[in-house]
Amino acid sequence: MKAVILAIGDELVLGQNVDTNSAWISARLVERGIFTVFHKTVPDDQPAIVAAIREAAELADVVIVTGGLGPTADDLTRQALAEVMQAPLELHAPSLEKMKGFFRKLGRPMPDTNSIQAMCPRGAEILENDFGTAPGLKARLGRATVLIFPGVPKEMKGMFDRHALPALPGQSGRTILTAIVNAFGAGESVVAEKLGELMRRDRNPLVGTTVSAGIIAVRIRSDFESVERARQALAETVQAVEERLGDLVFSRGDVTLPQVVGERLRQKGRSVVTVESCTGGLLAKLFTDGAGSSDYFRGGWVVYANDMKQGQLQVPAAMLDAYGAVSEPVARTMAEQGLAAGRADYALAVTGVAGPSGGSAEKPVGTVWLALAVRRGPEVQVQAERFSFPGDREMVRDRSAKMALDMLRLELLRG
Amino acid sequence: MKAVILAIGDELVLGQNVDTNSAWISARLVERGIFTVFHKTVPDDQPAIVAAIREAAELADVVIVTGGLGPTADDLTRQALAEVMQAPLELHAPSLEKMKGFFRKLGRPMPDTNSIQAMCPRGAEILENDFGTAPGLKARLGRATVLIFPGVPKEMKGMFDRHALPALPGQSGRTILTAIVNAFGAGESVVAEKLGELMRRDRNPLVGTTVSAGIIAVRIRSDFESVERARQALAETVQAVEERLGDLVFSRGDVTLPQVVGERLRQKGRSVVTVESCTGGLLAKLFTDGAGSSDYFRGGWVVYANDMKQGQLQVPAAMLDAYGAVSEPVARTMAEQGLAAGRADYALAVTGVAGPSGGSAEKPVGTVWLALAVRRGPEVQVQAERFSFPGDREMVRDRSAKMALDMLRLELLRG
Repeated sequence: MKAVILAIGDELVLGQNVDTNSAWISARLVERGIFTVFHKTVPDDQPAIVAAIREAAELADVVIVTGGLGPTADDLTRQALAEVMQAPLELHAPSLEKMKGFFRKLGRPMPDTNSIQAMCPRGAEILENDFGTAPGLKARLGRATVLIFPGVPKEMKGMFDRHALPALPGQSGRTILTAIVNAFGAGESVVAEKLGELMRRDRNPLVGTTVSAGIIAVRIRSDFESVERARQALAETVQAVEERLGDLVFSRGDVTLPQVVGERLRQKGRSVVTVESCTGGLLAKLFTDGAGSSDYFRGGWVVYANDMKQGQLQVPAAMLDAYGAVSEPVARTMAEQGLAAGRADYALAVTGVAGPSGGSAEKPVGTVWLALAVRRGPEVQVQAERFSFPGDREMVRDRSAKMALDMLRLELLRG
Repeated sequence: MKAVILAIGDELVLGQNVDTNSAWISARLVERGIFTVFHKTVPDDQPAIVAAIREAAELADVVIVTGGLGPTADDLTRQALAEVMQAPLELHAPSLEKMKGFFRKLGRPMPDTNSIQAMCPRGAEILENDFGTAPGLKARLGRATVLIFPGVPKEMKGMFDRHALPALPGQSGRTILTAIVNAFGAGESVVAEKLGELMRRDRNPLVGTTVSAGIIAVRIRSDFESVERARQALAETVQAVEERLGDLVFSRGDVTLPQVVGERLRQKGRSVVTVESCTGGLLAKLFTDGAGSSDYFRGGWVVYANDMKQGQLQVPAAMLDAYGAVSEPVARTMAEQGLAAGRADYALAVTGVAGPSGGSAEKPVGTVWLALAVRRGPEVQVQAERFSFPGDREMVRDRSAKMALDMLRLELLRG
């Protein structure tokens, strides 16, 4: 079972808005075992819409169109469908009544232009809209079922669930299930090497990787006739991926690295503080992005200037002079002092050269020292590691903060 | 001049990721007078990519492709281009060397799979990537210029500016110049009212507004035959916009609010510290996003837990008990103590209810106190203001940090 998804709108091809509808619809279709052949976005231009609908109806069993159903002169999807069907537009009286009621409720007169929204090509069917004035349309073109919804995401989503799901052709014996396994701490090619033949393109479930800001998402797609088979194969592949990647894996689905670390801290009833130089508050920000982070995040210091490192965290001036701010002893001291002053179970410290200036032959841009201080009863243990991150200032800061989170994640796995 | 934009990736047609690249590219092309005929998204499937490139090259002068240049088996765009060109893939030695250098810097061996990224179809051209390992590709297909970039938005954007803009064909007999004026501190409708008839749709230069995360971008597009005319009309409209919006305007172009504030501090040789509760490091992070921020940003405190407010910034426990952490006296004390401890010229303090929990009838979610302490010789002056921000946790934190920056911006305008 194949689908094509069309998005209509000048604002989309002009780049003023991002089309989020097509991805949302694709994900819903995949759950029903319907695979999207392509997304296409075309402007508010009747010949372009007509051509796109024709092309889609020839290729696919299901064509879903969003946008171009509004009341203004640049909304032409309804007319385009009529042209493809070679059918006249006719007034659909119940839709007009409903629309008038909508405006009455708002206490405003209905503008004349809105009545176009109650027009329907002969032979097509009106789909009611409970969230706005524009009804959707449903038609048959050859073997394809065509469903047209307004472009406003809220209206589209509500109507999709109500009208599209029941109208979709039967499963015809296929189930597609998907899962995502998230990894951090190695490059995409290292992950691919570890996955080995799991990534073969003729494999089912199919395994692929995408990387975004250092996070490797391993995407798994299981495609079988029976639901049970698809589910079992998906579970087996997810497990195989997780076994091969080991500690690199931090979550499934859309759970982020700060969420995983926060959740572990909450479960163990432990707390953390941060001491940041080059990340300048980013690490604390990541900890506090999540609701309820006050359960485990106590606070932090941004000791950007060297005398702030001395004054707030008792990093000795002699140490700064001897080793420089980007050094193992300074990172360790920052973590130890933060742990003590913040009375926390863990303290993460970051000091590095984010760039673009400040680098040297010995400590080029991207050189970062991370330290983690851990309270074990009366003892404090500190581990520190040096990293060399590639990229620009933003990338160095991002990877430094994520690597610090990952140090704590691995520590929480152990103890 | 026409463009087609293709996005390649299973994750896109499966609906796991939203394609934001195509809209971004479209917007850049419009600024150059190049209009996008359609966007198309196809899976990691060589025949589908080949067909999409062929279709696009027949229709358009410029074809821009993103995605499918990674090192793994599901990255097939390079092979698809070779198939369309009927050309063999050949090793590009300088790219291989650059890639090896990239891994050397990371201190890791380069996996063999990465070497595919140094392959280039004979007759095509390699486009250097400064942000990752995958070079882009440029080729000529009939009358179409084809440019292929990695799908990672950051890499794509950097490469687009460096490689695509110079490669784009020129416009004939028309000059389109654009400018952006950025405003903060009022809603979009207030800005629109102040702009009045400047926003008429039949005006040239055309003036429009878009809002993103509280920042109102006033976009001006001047479209004339002669360069001089276009330039002069643009300058006049920019000036008219700035006059009408007054202090709401903080910058032109892509200069951000933290950059403006940072630049003013640098010019005046003054320094700032931050004391954050609900923003949890976000404000410090915004200050330190920019290169060279150590010239004016000294550091900050994230006093998330109440006893951190007491221990680190001497906020009296009695004050916290009497007024609560989200209150004027606490905000003022945080700013005063931060100014003193950080020996800075300015201290910004933020304390609020970011939500989703923690709200009350008296202080609902979105209630935020901001304070700014200013050193004037031996004197310290503190101003504080209460805000009620709408939206969810992310929005409340974002607006709080921006409003704090804006308090300091307005203070710097005055003295």
